[in-house]
Amino acid sequence: MDLNSDLGEGFGIWRLGDDEALLDVVTSANVACGFHAGDPSTMRRVCALAAGRGVAVGAQVSYRDLAGFGRRFIDVDPAELADEVLYQIGALDACARAAGTRVSYVKPHGALYNATVHHDAQAGAVVDGVRAFGDLPVLGLPGSRLLHHASRAGLRAVREAFADRAYTPEGTLVPRGRPGAVLTETDAVLAQVLRLARSGELVTVTGETIAAEVDSICLHGDTPGAVAHARSVRAALTDAGVRVGRFVVE
Amino acid sequence: MDLNSDLGEGFGIWRLGDDEALLDVVTSANVACGFHAGDPSTMRRVCALAAGRGVAVGAQVSYRDLAGFGRRFIDVDPAELADEVLYQIGALDACARAAGTRVSYVKPHGALYNATVHHDAQAGAVVDGVRAFGDLPVLGLPGSRLLHHASRAGLRAVREAFADRAYTPEGTLVPRGRPGAVLTETDAVLAQVLRLARSGELVTVTGETIAAEVDSICLHGDTPGAVAHARSVRAALTDAGVRVGRFVVE
Amino acid sequence: MDLNSDLGEGFGIWRLGDDEALLDVVTSANVACGFHAGDPSTMRRVCALAAGRGVAVGAQVSYRDLAGFGRRFIDVDPAELADEVLYQIGALDACARAAGTRVSYVKPHGALYNATVHHDAQAGAVVDGVRAFGDLPVLGLPGSRLLHHASRAGLRAVREAFADRAYTPEGTLVPRGRPGAVLTETDAVLAQVLRLARSGELVTVTGETIAAEVDSICLHGDTPGAVAHARSVRAALTDAGVRVGRFVVE
Amino acid sequence: MDLNSDLGEGFGIWRLGDDEALLDVVTSANVACGFHAGDPSTMRRVCALAAGRGVAVGAQVSYRDLAGFGRRFIDVDPAELADEVLYQIGALDACARAAGTRVSYVKPHGALYNATVHHDAQAGAVVDGVRAFGDLPVLGLPGSRLLHHASRAGLRAVREAFADRAYTPEGTLVPRGRPGAVLTETDAVLAQVLRLARSGELVTVTGETIAAEVDSICLHGDTPGAVAHARSVRAALTDAGVRVGRFVVE
Repeated sequence: MDLNSDLGEGFGIWRLGDDEALLDVVTSANVACGFHAGDPSTMRRVCALAAGRGVAVGAQVSYRDLAGFGRRFIDVDPAELADEVLYQIGALDACARAAGTRVSYVKPHGALYNATVHHDAQAGAVVDGVRAFGDLPVLGLPGSRLLHHASRAGLRAVREAFADRAYTPEGTLVPRGRPGAVLTETDAVLAQVLRLARSGELVTVTGETIAAEVDSICLHGDTPGAVAHARSVRAALTDAGVRVGRFVVE
Repeated sequence: MDLNSDLGEGFGIWRLGDDEALLDVVTSANVACGFHAGDPSTMRRVCALAAGRGVAVGAQVSYRDLAGFGRRFIDVDPAELADEVLYQIGALDACARAAGTRVSYVKPHGALYNATVHHDAQAGAVVDGVRAFGDLPVLGLPGSRLLHHASRAGLRAVREAFADRAYTPEGTLVPRGRPGAVLTETDAVLAQVLRLARSGELVTVTGETIAAEVDSICLHGDTPGAVAHARSVRAALTDAGVRVGRFVVE
Repeated sequence: MDLNSDLGEGFGIWRLGDDEALLDVVTSANVACGFHAGDPSTMRRVCALAAGRGVAVGAQVSYRDLAGFGRRFIDVDPAELADEVLYQIGALDACARAAGTRVSYVKPHGALYNATVHHDAQAGAVVDGVRAFGDLPVLGLPGSRLLHHASRAGLRAVREAFADRAYTPEGTLVPRGRPGAVLTETDAVLAQVLRLARSGELVTVTGETIAAEVDSICLHGDTPGAVAHARSVRAALTDAGVRVGRFVVE
Repeated sequence: MDLNSDLGEGFGIWRLGDDEALLDVVTSANVACGFHAGDPSTMRRVCALAAGRGVAVGAQVSYRDLAGFGRRFIDVDPAELADEVLYQIGALDACARAAGTRVSYVKPHGALYNATVHHDAQAGAVVDGVRAFGDLPVLGLPGSRLLHHASRAGLRAVREAFADRAYTPEGTLVPRGRPGAVLTETDAVLAQVLRLARSGELVTVTGETIAAEVDSICLHGDTPGAVAHARSVRAALTDAGVRVGRFVVE
């Protein structure tokens, strides 16, 4: 099972999360590329830290929105969005290669992640941008338009689940703000992660068990206690005999 | 003799110069990379136009300064500058590869160009950024710290002269604002270009003839009559039997 | 009848439209405030030119989106949008006061203009931002949520029509891209403007005559022939005995 | 004695320092205006917090440089710099007025602060920008070109010293990086502050006592232990019978 997290999300003087600590836990690093966060020096530093630990570097592509941290939907023209995705991957890949590694997958960030679950044109645009760069795997929500377009384009569609989010019986996320949307108890998080890893299943917010085959589990890095949480998840998986490792085939 | 010009210097809705017309004249296109100008869609379009004409794509790297068009000196930390150069080259290279070509050289823009004539740390930083990407030629002013660092680092140092700028007896540019700094008469421009191309010499603002071996001649694209000027230069060189072609060895 | 136009929409080195020529025609200048276009020097210059001609200065507030020229919907949090509107008005008002005038009204730009026709929360947020600054008139589309919120908040709701856009029988704009959405013939534009000014009516794209009481007519400044067009409109109104003047009461 | 500190220096999701805690200590808040830090919502929130505590709001104007936090010298054209200063003051004043207060002074930030100690044209430009807004006091280093220009223009020149910086016998700051440049011991800081407040003197890094009449003392807010430090300074002054209060006359 792969563990991924958003990293390098500072900008200039500002920092967010503890990149080094999380890089000791995860196997795939979604590195911000400068559009919602991430300056060139941070990008290069995170790539070097990831390379040194054998952590895969992924391009966490985003809307151009530093002020909103990429968390606001922007109705970008799909052709421009594809070009912006290409630009971001290229910029990060240069940083990754300087650190002796490469960008090995792409994952949209924030509002772009959410939009490409349903927004067909933007989902297709992200995939177009990826393909313009090369045949990289795309990380996303199972059932999303994003993964649909990725598969259809011949890219590897990497399915992820969230360690700390509750799911509906339809397999979608319980929207933030609804009761129980976020799992705050460590036990509940560990139970969900272990069930995902061992039986490919989830228990939904309403108590039903549904199938949930995923390739990666997303750990949040910017919440209080994020690092401790992430360490617990990795330890629990290892203790349960689940091999934790990159989804990326090298 | 190579002819280079700055291209793709619009941003979003704003345009500057006539990229298509100049791409029919020059052999090397210095493409803006998003820091002083150049959005991803413009970058990709210019790369495609250049590739279609066999024009070499160069990364016109710059200070991060859209508001000042990269024309103001910024006292950037050299390590950050190197990272910013790397980021810009990577972003443009992704656009170039999507168009079937590659970034084949690097030329600093505006205030960074001027700074790296004398500013040793920034000149070294630009070269560090280039080397972190790969062994690309660096285009600059003969005698500049930039070309000094490039050569010392084992990169090809490509020397350029300006078609329409007057020179001092020391081989430096007459500063803008001084009388005669810019050659406005077409005849004077053509005479300077032909002398550079045929005998490797310049006549200075004070009338002396000095040696000036250069590999490329820079044509400005954003002044009134720029395109007509550029066409005249190319025609004059061809008429004089000078082969006009990319300095980049393929 | 008031004539308004978008002005000061360059940024840094880039220019858009002919501000000086349009300022000789319009009575209200919607000045860009730096979020979609407009740097401080341009803002101050346009304010000075407007003040010198007795043209009213309005704040053309926008989403924070230089790359997209404010033409893409952004799903901004309403409270943040209100603060951004306040910031923009304050910045422009400082420029206006330095030029001996004041910001005397507010008009949203581009995608924010379109969004606030229907998007209740963003429309309310723009009005909140205006009120936080002071009781300025708000310029917008008749029937829009924006003008509804403005009126309810006790602000003057200034209704505008477009000189060169076709209307549906419901009084809404024929969407761009549909046949006949934009009036390109000068005669058609002048007929529409004269009908608006003299009888408070419009002839719709389907040939019906509907009531259309407006306080201002918007002239576009960034299209080819914009200045000539604008001059014809003003001349036609004057010839028809319509007094052309600012809606702003001084 | 006035106590001032830099506040509101986050941007979007990113935070820096503990604004609320410092606002309980200082009497003058240098609020970032969006050019090196500070988004409209942060600006408005800090103004409201300051107003609620009777803390004076000052415009902490800066170079346009989010990526560098305004800490890099930029060779801006003085006329543009004046316009940028005016823009920033206007934007903050709108936020301040919405909170029931006003911008009551101006202090340059970071590299602009350092530049305007010696750079005559930029110092004059800052003062020009202030005067274009109104006759606000300017806070700066005693002996700086900034305060010279402010005085000459008829503005109040408010002299400040730093609580935790060592001084040379000439009364200038010992450059960061030199041994002893920053006072890290609380006792040393308190001794310096008390000497400044009670006798208008400083003990220099070489042990001499020099005159140092100042109107305000600057406390840093973004260093570890900043808040505790600031509280100690205020308590020590109060204990010593020094009245702590705004320099701004209301």
